[in-house]
Amino acid sequence: MNGAMVFCGTVVHSTKNEYMTILEDTVIGVHHGKIIFIDEPGNVRTLLQAHNIDEDCVKHLGKHQFLVPGLIDTHAHAPQYPNCGKGLDSGLLEWLEKYTFPTEAKCQDPEYALEMYTRTVNCLLRYGTTTASYFATIHYKSSTVLCDVIEKMGQRAFVGKVNMDTNSPDFYVEDTDESLKETERFIQNVIGRKNNLLKPIVTPRFAITCSMKLMSELGKISRKYDIPIQTHLSESLNECEAVKKLFPEFANYTSVYQEAGLITKKTILAHAVHLSDCEMALLKANGAGISHCPNSNISLRSGLLDAQRVISCGIKIGLGTDISGGYSCSMLDAMRMALGVSNVNSIIRQNYQPIDYKQAFMMATLGGSRVLGLEDVTGNFEVGKDFDALVVDAMTESSLAGVEDCDTMEDIIQKFIYLGDDRNIIEVYVAGRRVV
Amino acid sequence: MNGAMVFCGTVVHSTKNEYMTILEDTVIGVHHGKIIFIDEPGNVRTLLQAHNIDEDCVKHLGKHQFLVPGLIDTHAHAPQYPNCGKGLDSGLLEWLEKYTFPTEAKCQDPEYALEMYTRTVNCLLRYGTTTASYFATIHYKSSTVLCDVIEKMGQRAFVGKVNMDTNSPDFYVEDTDESLKETERFIQNVIGRKNNLLKPIVTPRFAITCSMKLMSELGKISRKYDIPIQTHLSESLNECEAVKKLFPEFANYTSVYQEAGLITKKTILAHAVHLSDCEMALLKANGAGISHCPNSNISLRSGLLDAQRVISCGIKIGLGTDISGGYSCSMLDAMRMALGVSNVNSIIRQNYQPIDYKQAFMMATLGGSRVLGLEDVTGNFEVGKDFDALVVDAMTESSLAGVEDCDTMEDIIQKFIYLGDDRNIIEVYVAGRRVV
Ligand SMILES: [Zn+2]
Ligand SMILES: [Zn+2]
Repeated sequence: MNGAMVFCGTVVHSTKNEYMTILEDTVIGVHHGKIIFIDEPGNVRTLLQAHNIDEDCVKHLGKHQFLVPGLIDTHAHAPQYPNCGKGLDSGLLEWLEKYTFPTEAKCQDPEYALEMYTRTVNCLLRYGTTTASYFATIHYKSSTVLCDVIEKMGQRAFVGKVNMDTNSPDFYVEDTDESLKETERFIQNVIGRKNNLLKPIVTPRFAITCSMKLMSELGKISRKYDIPIQTHLSESLNECEAVKKLFPEFANYTSVYQEAGLITKKTILAHAVHLSDCEMALLKANGAGISHCPNSNISLRSGLLDAQRVISCGIKIGLGTDISGGYSCSMLDAMRMALGVSNVNSIIRQNYQPIDYKQAFMMATLGGSRVLGLEDVTGNFEVGKDFDALVVDAMTESSLAGVEDCDTMEDIIQKFIYLGDDRNIIEVYVAGRRVV
Repeated sequence: MNGAMVFCGTVVHSTKNEYMTILEDTVIGVHHGKIIFIDEPGNVRTLLQAHNIDEDCVKHLGKHQFLVPGLIDTHAHAPQYPNCGKGLDSGLLEWLEKYTFPTEAKCQDPEYALEMYTRTVNCLLRYGTTTASYFATIHYKSSTVLCDVIEKMGQRAFVGKVNMDTNSPDFYVEDTDESLKETERFIQNVIGRKNNLLKPIVTPRFAITCSMKLMSELGKISRKYDIPIQTHLSESLNECEAVKKLFPEFANYTSVYQEAGLITKKTILAHAVHLSDCEMALLKANGAGISHCPNSNISLRSGLLDAQRVISCGIKIGLGTDISGGYSCSMLDAMRMALGVSNVNSIIRQNYQPIDYKQAFMMATLGGSRVLGLEDVTGNFEVGKDFDALVVDAMTESSLAGVEDCDTMEDIIQKFIYLGDDRNIIEVYVAGRRVV
């Protein structure tokens, strides 16, 4: 069988029943980019024969190496990459005006976008982000450039041309009709690529910068093309106040989106920090998911999401870097920060059980795939899913993780989550294609 | 003049009046390990002549390079390095019993200690920690091994043989008299080395594991040799409760140490998260300093230090990694985490002004030097101080900091603080000696 790959070694992933399963001695077969078997190594010979695979295709992982599912960033602003790590002394609304909008506006120039997006996607891939849901900018052309870059580099992604027609600076705003027309044009462009890994996503920025007419029409567009929706919800208290003033006729922030037909089972809501029980119930009833962006929430001082509440409500939850509200494009950082925020919740609340590193890992992999509606395609190593995977070496020469002889595989995985970086991610696969 | 060095380029440091000063075009001269001038580059020729320095000694920093003072870790447990990044699902007291004490106990074997301490000190140096205040273990021999390693590698450090004579596991506890005898023996060993960079420090672990007799005698020893003291104070609420039960006759935790003569202007108190105003006043009156260990406080869910309160009380404050209560041995991480904790304080309190990255930088450099009583020797680039410095390159090939053409030097420094790692720290100097 041509183009097959077989990995033998330790495999770590989340399953329906366990936040983290460590399979220390396992063999995974991949063909045409899909996982065709996952089994015990005693069966390798039989499996190779049964699938007509040559022994040369077998790759044995080293002692400190293991496979994890590709990481899933459920919320990233690709055009804000140049701002990562700067301008974090202001709160959300001031930060948008001072840093974010001017930087995004530069994407009017597609050549600038090409160069910048190439570095952005490269950075995410190096950090093991095999799937990302991107906000691009309001510009049709540069949004297609982001798609070009993603296709070339082989990442799995949702890309959204951003919509904003009100309460935006003169240099970065659209006419409502133009915004809708360009959105359909963009969606058709992406669909026309017939790339299974790349999908368009309807992307109203947030209720403050979108008129009800724009949002409602975008809801219709999402239904017309049967594509997902992403936006921001209830990130900071100032923002919630502003939405209340702009839409006084609605009971709450979530209802504004619901009225526009934007709260669906294909909707990804970034942040959702300050939701009432009533709003949580709305999300649950409609099957919408939350992208938890802990670095951003801390860095912009937006608030402390209660991830346990989201989980116990049965609402889908994944992690997002929210670059550059979050300063790091690393999903390892997102896991650490999610642990940090949850620990803070346990400090300030009575009897609060914080999430553990296994839950953080689940959110960065299987949880993310659920939020993106990709749980049948990626997120863990089930037979039939695409092979989106990282080969992790916890003990590369330059590594700071410091694996010890006495460390169990569980210790080593923890050390990777807490201390690992791009140097520990030595191979990255998307749908079986090696991209790093 | 032999062995002189002159750096031309951007210099960043804290001064008495400013948390961060960026001197974009500056020349620093170093001789015999000390800073002999810092001036404008127009004066280079005159300066070289005046100090009889050859032009070959001049080093020009690149466009994205700058000098910062060596970073100062005011609280690190060297023997816990192997545990970094694991076992963080338990709180302080459980974590001590389950992970910390057994790992420290291994240092009974000096050969193990040599190998492990070599990796520990190497890791800190690579991360630019030119000065550290270390807790070793209760073992005399291995504590001297840590000193050997530090001397060989050229780091500036305080090293303390740990004392604990009660409420400790059988396999890791000392007899009171033996503990005192071994402490003096250790202090004399370190003093006998006549190494200006290396000093002994009196190190009672904390009030729970030390009898009042032990602590009082240690207070006397610190006065006898005129050496500093380090211990833990008010880290977690459970710990504070336990101290209250063990020492019911004292008004508060700080008073226990004060009674023992351990609260002095040479005392470094790690954590100090849950102090009353009365305790703060005690620290202030006695000139003791606080080592703020934000990663540890979050990771072990100990509490949220109010750094602004410490600063506004006029109490000295530096940063500590507290490895392995904190999972990272990087002082860059300590700065980010200090910003994170302060941001959390601003989220949960009314009208709270969080610290900014310049204050975090000050705490990691000049602030740390004050806490260690080394402000005349290190912490910034004043003439007469030792040259403890890092050459930072914000834009190395592997860097993830992503410097942009439009970035100002201030932007570049922020990106280093938020996104930099050991790859950006290309040279490390301690007292003029290159150690990385
Ligand atoms: Zn966002
Ligand atoms: Zn400590």
